Amino acid sequence: MAPDNLNIEVIFTPSLYSARQIKENCAVIIVDVLRAGTTICTAFNEGVERIIPVASVEEAVLMKQKGYLVAGERNGEKLDFADFGNSPSELMSRDIAGKTLVITTTNGTQAIEMAHGAEIIATGTFTNLAYIAEWLTSLDMNITILCAGWRNTFSLEDTIFAGALTERLVQPQNRYVLYDSTIASLELWQQAKSGLFVYLQKSSHYRRLVKLGFQKDLDYAADLNTTRVIPVMENNYFKNIIK
Amino acid sequence: MAPDNLNIEVIFTPSLYSARQIKENCAVIIVDVLRAGTTICTAFNEGVERIIPVASVEEAVLMKQKGYLVAGERNGEKLDFADFGNSPSELMSRDIAGKTLVITTTNGTQAIEMAHGAEIIATGTFTNLAYIAEWLTSLDMNITILCAGWRNTFSLEDTIFAGALTERLVQPQNRYVLYDSTIASLELWQQAKSGLFVYLQKSSHYRRLVKLGFQKDLDYAADLNTTRVIPVMENNYFKNIIK
Repeated sequence: MAPDNLNIEVIFTPSLYSARQIKENCAVIIVDVLRAGTTICTAFNEGVERIIPVASVEEAVLMKQKGYLVAGERNGEKLDFADFGNSPSELMSRDIAGKTLVITTTNGTQAIEMAHGAEIIATGTFTNLAYIAEWLTSLDMNITILCAGWRNTFSLEDTIFAGALTERLVQPQNRYVLYDSTIASLELWQQAKSGLFVYLQKSSHYRRLVKLGFQKDLDYAADLNTTRVIPVMENNYFKNIIK
Repeated sequence: MAPDNLNIEVIFTPSLYSARQIKENCAVIIVDVLRAGTTICTAFNEGVERIIPVASVEEAVLMKQKGYLVAGERNGEKLDFADFGNSPSELMSRDIAGKTLVITTTNGTQAIEMAHGAEIIATGTFTNLAYIAEWLTSLDMNITILCAGWRNTFSLEDTIFAGALTERLVQPQNRYVLYDSTIASLELWQQAKSGLFVYLQKSSHYRRLVKLGFQKDLDYAADLNTTRVIPVMENNYFKNIIK
């Protein structure tokens, strides 16, 4: 396929992805910037070897019984049997380097499961924006940015990130066709970027997490390029392809 | 329900609406600004008495056989058995005052069918923006703005309209809680409104219709408040509640 036929599509919620045919030559980037995505990037930044995402709590319990470290959350709160919740700060300075981590979350891991079957599945967040953008640019593939959202509704923060990633992909030279959803994401990002920390406070998910006491995690999640990692799916687990 | 508990939610495609529970005390505004919505407003502006939306071509054929006037379109083109396509200009200065019109279109009439069961169903477009906004303000209801989109993907033009309607509803005093999708629509409209005709050219649906020769209809669809009508569903048909 000629480079000028490549496209970037933003899909705002997993249920819209499931209705679509899988595209050929397509990398799917899963986006859950306030939680799972940033937790995954942080874990790799701390030296974790593999991350196995599982969609259901039941699967996470089984993995815990098998001896795996588990990060698990539902509706913003840590699952009681898990070693960690879905909070990046919980993973810092813990003895997790070289280990395998199982993760299950309210929205993010459902989106990952939905993307099953795509040629490439990776995760992007503000904390690894520059690294994932540079890598995607080298791929010569169509790009689908799949936002995890919140319970299958549109979420502002994931959309803003989709716009940030699109901006990096179309500069300095745009070889991609942009879907309407991609144009909208890009425009929202261009409004947000000069004051990202403040802008994100408009998001209902952000406000929900502040109430749950995660302000520090939210500031961290909105900081650009702090984790030099590219989490990419291989078989049933993520690996960091930057070593 | 206290007025300060009211909310405005924008839903970007019909398939996302179908997954949701019907809200109490809720008016659903169907949005398909470049085609069905504006065709319906124009027909009422020309004095049509009733508009019966049908989702399938088969139903439209049956209604034609029963003697109804039919406006029918699929993929932008007029259905061969129909009296009119989905083009507002076709309906102007025709002998349709006092008559009943049946309409079936690619996206808009599917969204109308999806909303079945809501307490109030109405259509809003740029051409009746001020009238529908004023009426909604008087209702004291939750508002769901359901964008028809294009084949169940996000469309820029319907979203921009959702933002325009939201802006009118929250001024001069905002008594509504806005969903993330509503905030995004409002911000996109605020970018678009100073040059709406040019902005809409970014929309893929707009470009598709220009190729099909509908430039004149598109200019008309982007003109504010030219049809003083409020199409509201009663039983299985729309009626203009401004007389």
